[in-house]
Amino acid sequence: MPSPRQVFIAVIGTGGVGKAFLSQLSQLASTLSRSPSNPTTISLIWVSTSKKALYHNDYQPLSNWETSLPTSSTPPLPLPALAEYLVKAPGKVVLVDNTSNQAVADSYPLFLTQGISIVTPNKKAFSSTFALWTSIFSAASNGTGSGGYIFHESSVGAGLPVISTLKELVETGDSVVKIEGVFSGTMSFLFNSFQPVSGGGGKFSAEVAAAKAKGFTEPDPRDDLNGLDVARKLTILARLAGLPIESPTSFPVQSLIPKELESCASGDEFLARLPEFDAQMDELKAAAEKEGKVVRFVGSVDVPKGEVKVGLEKFDTSHPIAALKGSDNIIAFYTKRYGDNPLIIQGAGAGGDVTAMGVTGDLLKVLRLLQ
Amino acid sequence: MPSPRQVFIAVIGTGGVGKAFLSQLSQLASTLSRSPSNPTTISLIWVSTSKKALYHNDYQPLSNWETSLPTSSTPPLPLPALAEYLVKAPGKVVLVDNTSNQAVADSYPLFLTQGISIVTPNKKAFSSTFALWTSIFSAASNGTGSGGYIFHESSVGAGLPVISTLKELVETGDSVVKIEGVFSGTMSFLFNSFQPVSGGGGKFSAEVAAAKAKGFTEPDPRDDLNGLDVARKLTILARLAGLPIESPTSFPVQSLIPKELESCASGDEFLARLPEFDAQMDELKAAAEKEGKVVRFVGSVDVPKGEVKVGLEKFDTSHPIAALKGSDNIIAFYTKRYGDNPLIIQGAGAGGDVTAMGVTGDLLKVLRLLQ
Repeated sequence: MPSPRQVFIAVIGTGGVGKAFLSQLSQLASTLSRSPSNPTTISLIWVSTSKKALYHNDYQPLSNWETSLPTSSTPPLPLPALAEYLVKAPGKVVLVDNTSNQAVADSYPLFLTQGISIVTPNKKAFSSTFALWTSIFSAASNGTGSGGYIFHESSVGAGLPVISTLKELVETGDSVVKIEGVFSGTMSFLFNSFQPVSGGGGKFSAEVAAAKAKGFTEPDPRDDLNGLDVARKLTILARLAGLPIESPTSFPVQSLIPKELESCASGDEFLARLPEFDAQMDELKAAAEKEGKVVRFVGSVDVPKGEVKVGLEKFDTSHPIAALKGSDNIIAFYTKRYGDNPLIIQGAGAGGDVTAMGVTGDLLKVLRLLQ
Repeated sequence: MPSPRQVFIAVIGTGGVGKAFLSQLSQLASTLSRSPSNPTTISLIWVSTSKKALYHNDYQPLSNWETSLPTSSTPPLPLPALAEYLVKAPGKVVLVDNTSNQAVADSYPLFLTQGISIVTPNKKAFSSTFALWTSIFSAASNGTGSGGYIFHESSVGAGLPVISTLKELVETGDSVVKIEGVFSGTMSFLFNSFQPVSGGGGKFSAEVAAAKAKGFTEPDPRDDLNGLDVARKLTILARLAGLPIESPTSFPVQSLIPKELESCASGDEFLARLPEFDAQMDELKAAAEKEGKVVRFVGSVDVPKGEVKVGLEKFDTSHPIAALKGSDNIIAFYTKRYGDNPLIIQGAGAGGDVTAMGVTGDLLKVLRLLQ
């Protein structure tokens, strides 16, 4: 049995995804240490939140971060100092960003150019300015650079194989014609309840309140209803399909926040006044029903036309987008090779475990490449 | 710009998939030669059919194989001699097996142990004896060995990301509970036409004849109707999920060839006599209809029970398996993380271009690993 190689892991963020990832990492570390052909010692050397950090100057692996971190009095290093710390580790380093923080995202080129690889579900890194996108992929070894590797499967559809599939379609020379789907678990749940294919469904405001009560929305539901989360995902997919989209606000995005409620001081005030607009939503529903259709909140990319859009559309009740269940996502790739019947991927697109799974899968990809 | 590395490619099989692959390869070679960070020269040094081969003793790249191969008078080398030839090539070698030949499949361990990587849609390598499976993956570097790499995405569902997804579920520590789906484009087309969710549909024998006329069946349709093709795919998935399935005949497989027609001397005689059994099939259809269901030919793996089966089952008309269109495949992964709503992958599961796409995608994976 060959002597094991060592790879160092630094994790930022210990929320729902961060916790699930760290649990998957500990299981993975145990498997990899026993690999007969390529045994690997995974050393967790850094865990931080926005307020606290856990690390040793001599890169000794952390034990029991869950009990130690809450009692730690060490603030996290500033990002450039973190990069400096990681670069000096005696081996290859992978940074796992489990936050949705813009400042961390902005620092990716700094880490990558110094040979540190990154895996992350952080949408902001790939859906902010096109300049940041370019700067990330011109630094990364799996872009056009010679730095660390970067993977971000969970930035769209959580653990569903959306980004890897789109990349493979493009890299093997297929022509992607259109990408269409439901990209938000919240929006999926809201519209599957508001207008089920079997008929019925509640008032829109009541469904929003119910979704919030079930923990299916952001703490302030306006952060889902403004469409920005979906716009960020479409920005990522459109860029992977070759379109130089400037930002998630550079194409039409329909917000479900009525103009009159844009000035609400709080999410609670917004929720209290939302019933005033139920009649409008019921009209949309009735209009769709008349055509034998249902309303869904979707995003689409028309590659040849270079058009991206996000908003409400009507679908036949027999359409896979209409038949979606619960809070599932669905993504359809229409390509030259697949013809009229698209390649479809469907399933849970949110949740700690499945999001972390995408991150762990990306870590495995990096480990294979870091030979 | 760094100086390009060279990778040698040998292709066996120039049928529908082989031709489509060679066309994708020539496009890929042009892209890879211009890669700014890792330029690669792809040299096609061997192309063969069962009767003819094209290669140079000095490993010079082949030009215009399409015009040269038909006029070649060189028979292919026996497989051990081919391995010897390829091992001596001045660089890394990838063997692309685009056949469905058992003898080629049996020789994989020989190639792998000598450091030659393999990409292939050939189901026989992964669905014959469990001893061959073990021997392949104990030789490969992405198994437990230290030889070449091996990938076979297109052995199930053509270019659909079925195998990579299942591998990632397993490797990231999810527990796969059940895999279920329609794994044959022929069976999909047959039953979507025989019993559409919208009602109607023709006699079973007429649908078989129509599918054959459209080129959706093997030359002898009994090779589809015996269920062995689906059983091979289920064998592969079950093994990847951790079950040591001995062979595709070691679990229940329902053949749609009536016992009385097993002795037919030819496919034509079989087709001529199949209408005698239409009444039986109509009974099945009527029984399903009574329950608000449709009949479909599916395969499933129950991982905790260690059970694999292939045959006819009834599905609610609202079930994604019932709603499938044309000759599409659908594969649902039920796992601990995904809970009640499975991860679903759907789309064309046969055809030269999409099958070759899976092979080309696998080649890209090998090229990334062969640094």
